[in-house]
Amino acid sequence: SNMIKVAVVGGEGIGPEVTDQSHRILKWFSARRGVPVSLREAQYGLIPYLATGKVLPDDTVEAMEEADAILWGATGGPETTEVPAAARKAGSLLSLRSKYDLYANLRPIVASPALADSAPLKASVLKDVDFIIIRELTSGIYFGEPRGIETLPDGQRRGFNTQQYTTSQIRRVARTAFELARTRKGRVCSVDKANVLETSVLWREEVTALHQAEFSDVELTHLYVDNAAMQIVRAPSQFDVMVTCNIFGDILSDCAAMASGSLGMLPSVSLGPPDRLGRRKALYEPVHGSAPDIAGKGIANPLGSILSVAMMLRITLNRPDDAVLLEKAVDAALAGGARTADIAEPGARKLSTQEMGDAVLNAL
Amino acid sequence: SNMIKVAVVGGEGIGPEVTDQSHRILKWFSARRGVPVSLREAQYGLIPYLATGKVLPDDTVEAMEEADAILWGATGGPETTEVPAAARKAGSLLSLRSKYDLYANLRPIVASPALADSAPLKASVLKDVDFIIIRELTSGIYFGEPRGIETLPDGQRRGFNTQQYTTSQIRRVARTAFELARTRKGRVCSVDKANVLETSVLWREEVTALHQAEFSDVELTHLYVDNAAMQIVRAPSQFDVMVTCNIFGDILSDCAAMASGSLGMLPSVSLGPPDRLGRRKALYEPVHGSAPDIAGKGIANPLGSILSVAMMLRITLNRPDDAVLLEKAVDAALAGGARTADIAEPGARKLSTQEMGDAVLNAL
Ligand SMILES: CC(C)[C@H](C(=O)O)[C@@H](O)C(=O)O
Ligand SMILES: CC(C)[C@H](C(=O)O)[C@@H](O)C(=O)O
Repeated sequence: SNMIKVAVVGGEGIGPEVTDQSHRILKWFSARRGVPVSLREAQYGLIPYLATGKVLPDDTVEAMEEADAILWGATGGPETTEVPAAARKAGSLLSLRSKYDLYANLRPIVASPALADSAPLKASVLKDVDFIIIRELTSGIYFGEPRGIETLPDGQRRGFNTQQYTTSQIRRVARTAFELARTRKGRVCSVDKANVLETSVLWREEVTALHQAEFSDVELTHLYVDNAAMQIVRAPSQFDVMVTCNIFGDILSDCAAMASGSLGMLPSVSLGPPDRLGRRKALYEPVHGSAPDIAGKGIANPLGSILSVAMMLRITLNRPDDAVLLEKAVDAALAGGARTADIAEPGARKLSTQEMGDAVLNAL
Repeated sequence: SNMIKVAVVGGEGIGPEVTDQSHRILKWFSARRGVPVSLREAQYGLIPYLATGKVLPDDTVEAMEEADAILWGATGGPETTEVPAAARKAGSLLSLRSKYDLYANLRPIVASPALADSAPLKASVLKDVDFIIIRELTSGIYFGEPRGIETLPDGQRRGFNTQQYTTSQIRRVARTAFELARTRKGRVCSVDKANVLETSVLWREEVTALHQAEFSDVELTHLYVDNAAMQIVRAPSQFDVMVTCNIFGDILSDCAAMASGSLGMLPSVSLGPPDRLGRRKALYEPVHGSAPDIAGKGIANPLGSILSVAMMLRITLNRPDDAVLLEKAVDAALAGGARTADIAEPGARKLSTQEMGDAVLNAL
């Protein structure tokens, strides 16, 4: 069939609350715009753990296995002590990224004019900010071996981790960056620390070689990671597509979050390798975490999850017009003054998670 | 004698220009305030390389060896192709940090009210920003072994680096942080990635153990590095002393640079282990690099280097009143409108490097 299979996994903390809203939005596109999705809800976290002994029960594994796209909420983090570490690790986000080989993590940073007042950066600095960070997600220091903590002969302890990249790991994520740049402003900035690290020397050589061989129409520049962090704060509008390794991407994308007003606004997708038809398994999720401090209160910002649906419309569902429709609806809701607590100016009326979902649906 | 020995090494790029100004300032404190320094100038870089085959000639090594403090300018970076890589590496900043065991790198971030208009962050966000990042400087992924690039059986290449820390490496830099916090607002924030890396798990355990054993009067908190990057942009005034590993400190301090208006304003010191009397070998340098694009033009901002002299007055020379005197003179010069090109509003008159030095001397 032509139906695209989507697994909806709210997860823990504020995950289920925000995913409820993005789920409603996705159903609206299915019902009103004929977007051919078949939705399957599945559970993750403490609740299935208590019932089955697994945070990721077999039913959820099956739903994710068969899905073209996963709409993911959030996972609990170390605060959730009810689940033993081993059970949590077995079904962790890191293990899922690895299992589905979701090596290309795309994090768009777009500054909303409506939020310029509540952002820490000046409106003049936020002007024209529209870039995407592509973070390599299944290798680097997150997964490198050997790793551990050992006791030395003198009784001291030593912790060690391995940063590592191979030619093909670098080239495939760089390819994603170059291909994306061709659909945008045609510029890729590759970020490394080639003045210190051999992994970065190889990174730079391989990105450069792929560029010369296949993408010389795209403009390629290189920045050291320290300078990149500074430039993201100083003048974020200079960037189009930025590509970097796992740990640098983790840090830089949070650093860039403030160039969009609020972490709560940021969507993301993690893409696996393309199949024969160019289709890639995709996990869509807001950049924010499970925020246990506000979980269950109904006050979380659902826009990160809702904008992840816009990314799904554009990438997995190949419906760019619908993606723009949804992004415009979010802009309109914000321009109309809709604010959850995290983006509200002092004294402004604060919408609940559900009311923000309503505001976007009304604007559609 | 009671004379404190200072080696003055301007280095390359804009290094000599900015160091000329901080050198003048240091001589002023010697002549007018009786600060007991004995100054020895020494060369570094292309010029001694052409004469002796070494970027760090024997005379400079001797001057640095005998010095209590080194006033350092900048080194050329990879752009300077006239010096072969091996010769450059033999005398590199990394090798000096390692040779003198300068493990604690202190980078103060202070927002100047006079510069709030030209900073990318809002004045409200910059209010009350006054913190210090302590970066571990002689271990971590910068120096860990094994490292390299190997060719795999299938012809692919693989780059690898080792992030590593031992108990004592963590504890000694954490000690510097706790001791410094006692002289300030009494708060330490330790930054790691303990939800992913074993090195960070050990880091957190050892910082916590030292805190409990000897510094429970200091407030200790922990942040993940991605969150720390975001908080530095979002609300930098929350921090007092931040301590972290080599690579995270490299990235976070550049990220924080924008909270002070300009990279050109930032001073730093790298401290070695204390001797019996608590004295520590110290290398003072501006955070900025050699900026080859503007070298020789006389337009670089000397305040990073001049404020490094203020740090020297406070730490090596134990003259806190003189340190404050100099910091106030810099504030007064800025408040009086003195601006080099990097911090000038459009249309404002731009001072040369020398004129900025004059402005600070006039304010003294
Ligand atoms: C929770 C953590 C393991 C994760 C990461 O570091 O990848 C998170 O920070 C993220 O960015 O998705
Ligand atoms: C030039 C480079 C090796 C150096 C570093 O990464 O330590 C620089 O960025 C710094 O921060 O002093």
